[in-house]
Amino acid sequence: MELKIGQLIAGTISSKIESCFTAYNPATGEALNPSVPEASVEEVEAAVNVASEAFESFSKTTGTIRASFLEAIANNIDALGDQLLDTAHLETALPLARLTGERGRTTSQLKLFANLVKNGNWKRAIVDGALPERQPLPRPDLRQMQIPLGVVAIFGSSNFPLAFSVAGGDTAAALAAGCPVVFKAHPAHPSTSQLIGEAIVKAGRETGIHAGVFSMVHGFSNQVGSDLVSHPLVKAVAFTGSFKGGKALYDLCVKRNEPIPVYAEMGSVNPVFFLPNAIEKNGEQLAKNFAASIAQGSGQFCTNPGLFVLLNSEKSKKFISDVSEAIAAITLHPMLTKKIADGYHDGIKNQLKLTGAKAVSKINYNAVAPSIVQTTCKHVLDTNSYFDEVFGPSSLAVIADDMEEVKSFIEKMPGQLTATIHASEKEISEVGSLVEKLQHKVGRIVFNSFPTGVEVCNAMVHGGPFPASTDSRSTSVGTTSIYRFVRPVCYQGFPDELLPDELKKANPLHLMRLENDDYKR
Amino acid sequence: MELKIGQLIAGTISSKIESCFTAYNPATGEALNPSVPEASVEEVEAAVNVASEAFESFSKTTGTIRASFLEAIANNIDALGDQLLDTAHLETALPLARLTGERGRTTSQLKLFANLVKNGNWKRAIVDGALPERQPLPRPDLRQMQIPLGVVAIFGSSNFPLAFSVAGGDTAAALAAGCPVVFKAHPAHPSTSQLIGEAIVKAGRETGIHAGVFSMVHGFSNQVGSDLVSHPLVKAVAFTGSFKGGKALYDLCVKRNEPIPVYAEMGSVNPVFFLPNAIEKNGEQLAKNFAASIAQGSGQFCTNPGLFVLLNSEKSKKFISDVSEAIAAITLHPMLTKKIADGYHDGIKNQLKLTGAKAVSKINYNAVAPSIVQTTCKHVLDTNSYFDEVFGPSSLAVIADDMEEVKSFIEKMPGQLTATIHASEKEISEVGSLVEKLQHKVGRIVFNSFPTGVEVCNAMVHGGPFPASTDSRSTSVGTTSIYRFVRPVCYQGFPDELLPDELKKANPLHLMRLENDDYKR
Repeated sequence: MELKIGQLIAGTISSKIESCFTAYNPATGEALNPSVPEASVEEVEAAVNVASEAFESFSKTTGTIRASFLEAIANNIDALGDQLLDTAHLETALPLARLTGERGRTTSQLKLFANLVKNGNWKRAIVDGALPERQPLPRPDLRQMQIPLGVVAIFGSSNFPLAFSVAGGDTAAALAAGCPVVFKAHPAHPSTSQLIGEAIVKAGRETGIHAGVFSMVHGFSNQVGSDLVSHPLVKAVAFTGSFKGGKALYDLCVKRNEPIPVYAEMGSVNPVFFLPNAIEKNGEQLAKNFAASIAQGSGQFCTNPGLFVLLNSEKSKKFISDVSEAIAAITLHPMLTKKIADGYHDGIKNQLKLTGAKAVSKINYNAVAPSIVQTTCKHVLDTNSYFDEVFGPSSLAVIADDMEEVKSFIEKMPGQLTATIHASEKEISEVGSLVEKLQHKVGRIVFNSFPTGVEVCNAMVHGGPFPASTDSRSTSVGTTSIYRFVRPVCYQGFPDELLPDELKKANPLHLMRLENDDYKR
Repeated sequence: MELKIGQLIAGTISSKIESCFTAYNPATGEALNPSVPEASVEEVEAAVNVASEAFESFSKTTGTIRASFLEAIANNIDALGDQLLDTAHLETALPLARLTGERGRTTSQLKLFANLVKNGNWKRAIVDGALPERQPLPRPDLRQMQIPLGVVAIFGSSNFPLAFSVAGGDTAAALAAGCPVVFKAHPAHPSTSQLIGEAIVKAGRETGIHAGVFSMVHGFSNQVGSDLVSHPLVKAVAFTGSFKGGKALYDLCVKRNEPIPVYAEMGSVNPVFFLPNAIEKNGEQLAKNFAASIAQGSGQFCTNPGLFVLLNSEKSKKFISDVSEAIAAITLHPMLTKKIADGYHDGIKNQLKLTGAKAVSKINYNAVAPSIVQTTCKHVLDTNSYFDEVFGPSSLAVIADDMEEVKSFIEKMPGQLTATIHASEKEISEVGSLVEKLQHKVGRIVFNSFPTGVEVCNAMVHGGPFPASTDSRSTSVGTTSIYRFVRPVCYQGFPDELLPDELKKANPLHLMRLENDDYKR
């Protein structure tokens, strides 16, 4: 069946076509069919307006209904079968095995949020009962819970065409929270986006959800995104991508008449610290595992370890060369777009221009090839440019004279999604003092493993201090990412019949509530 | 004992004096002694730098230590005795009884946060244990908790010289969270601020807290605040005051190289909706109580009910005139500053210039006198200016033709701290449909009472959608206000000995944790 592509507004594909753009097969460079209409400002406006209309009924849906909607989306994605995988493969050149895994991650993520909202514990109900006898003044009855913010604008990322795209984590979290979504599809995988968009629309129909709850617009130009986040009825923005893109959206949104929260996850260099004994004990295997983390997905992960720090020693030099050799032996698949591949090569070129930088691996600008560049901690401390992310299969080896220099490095380091420490049991106290400093710079600290592979669970934090993200108080992965799209409301002196079920005196939903200073269920 | 006044930096009063300003007695207009040195940019910088140094040790203090620090502050405030009340009375003209009550509120607030942090439940510990056998990939051990953001800049408000000032709710929450505070004192009550600042410094010494954890700077010009929030080591800002002041700080902070969260609580008109039967049943008493709420503190509350909505009827007209009469009989104390009094008069003048406005009460621009202005819902829907806050003892009566018009009013209404509904039992279903709409516009909904009087407890929300505040996801009153100053960190694959106590396997602190999807203690 041929796929019809276009703006998906409240369940209908808009027929208006003013200008079009094309996606490319990254493996061959060929333009792909069909060409994709660019959303007009009127279409963006229509999508947001109908989403805002849908908010009234959607925000009131029970957890059970929202859960069935999310589960139906997961089922409809599975039902797309090979068509989805083949389309995504054509548009991204990501291997089918990876895409199959990513599809599983996407559907489990939807199911995780479905489970989360089946009960209302996530709403953080708080009850402070009335104290009519209190002196000098009685206390009224006060009850608090979280309610959805309103329409959320979400931007798909290029590097996860399923898990961080149309029905990815941001969409799952926003819908779970009770917020309608207007999705800006990534221009590199429009057909994949359209298939998933249709799966969401179908799920909405199957479960009786207002058609305005999900719309999707396409756009190659920045104008579409800019129109979307500037709409007064949009109440929050979620984005995964480059610093430049995320910061531009942030700057637009803070200047609005009504500023709104922007959750832009913009990536980072994700430093890995190898303590001497870790390398000494198990250097060769560690080098292989580390190389695999650098090369995974051709390095196109937000959590790609783009920098590693070691103390100056012969073992460290051997380790760097082992990493370089191991990574050269790994088969890389093409990068997602020509722009990303060019950006990768430019990033390496710029890195090699910095004072103190030298190539460890053979640098190849004609293909996607791994690059290991080396410098000293002193040089890093002299310039901020070493902290610029190079998106691709490369890592920068930073050689420090001693642990004091490593600590200065951490102090100077800008915010990161992750930091990783490799150490042996003997080095635990050293690790403790690094963790103390690192925790104030990152969203997640990984011990004796690698930052790639972001588990979707309750405890995950995928975020971090600026410039890793625009809001360090949030995560974009895991169940607590739902809190990006809600805010607290307090109901004072309400008769029981007027209270939402979550807050009623008898606790009919059996929620875990903070009730008069104690957690009760 | 004469009070020495000046910048309080890490426990020492700075001796540098470049320029000075003066506070005034609002009751007499007289300049007060001593004159107050304006903080220089170097002093602001010194205060932030030492706060940042102090963060390392302070962020690591146990809940017990932080609790004893907060309790010591409360005790030292009590120990100031009449000197504090007399000084505050001289600087604010607030009656001694009110100041005594506010002192009690301030010390209980400190004790409430002390109790909150005595155990670590507030850190929202989450544990996802390792699943080594999981297919296709094992799950690593992942644990999340909240950690402090860093140095917080806090601005004192004029209208609560104790409870929203130097040792007020913002300071209590930030210190409880583990964040050092650099406080910008309000220029209208510098001596009160200095007394409280010294009480905090003394408490820090008594409980072994790093001297850099609390500093305070004075400034009449906006430059001091601007220097403060622009410092790269400041990680969050809290402010209570005017829209103009709060929005200016927000605009500065979002333009920083590293944008930071700004929690500006900027007040609102706090609409009160009187349904017909409520007035019919008990109109005269209700009018008296409502007038008392409007006049409380000479109307100088963020939650002052500056607007009320009624359906067009003879009873409504009678009610408006009852309110006007009742309020005229209340003795008002002088307003806090000449600027605020002038602003009040200008606000009324501007309101009366709007199409459709007419005075109900006799308007007196020569004294602080109550003002009741009246208009129709139609006129409000035609102009946004009716939603501008008039800070003082006034309220605008808005007459609506029917409930449909009231609903249009709510849709048009900008974000508010509170909304209040008065209704009889017969009108409950009507109330339900108002609440559904109102909850998306306000932080707190009050039923059959008044918005003034903000209870300090777990369930309170003192905040709301823009322009009531710059961050609707937060509250500036109550224990959940602590979440403004923390962010989540995830620890992956950590050996137990490296984990903070809050997250250790055996749960040695006996916290309520979300552990493998269930709440456990």
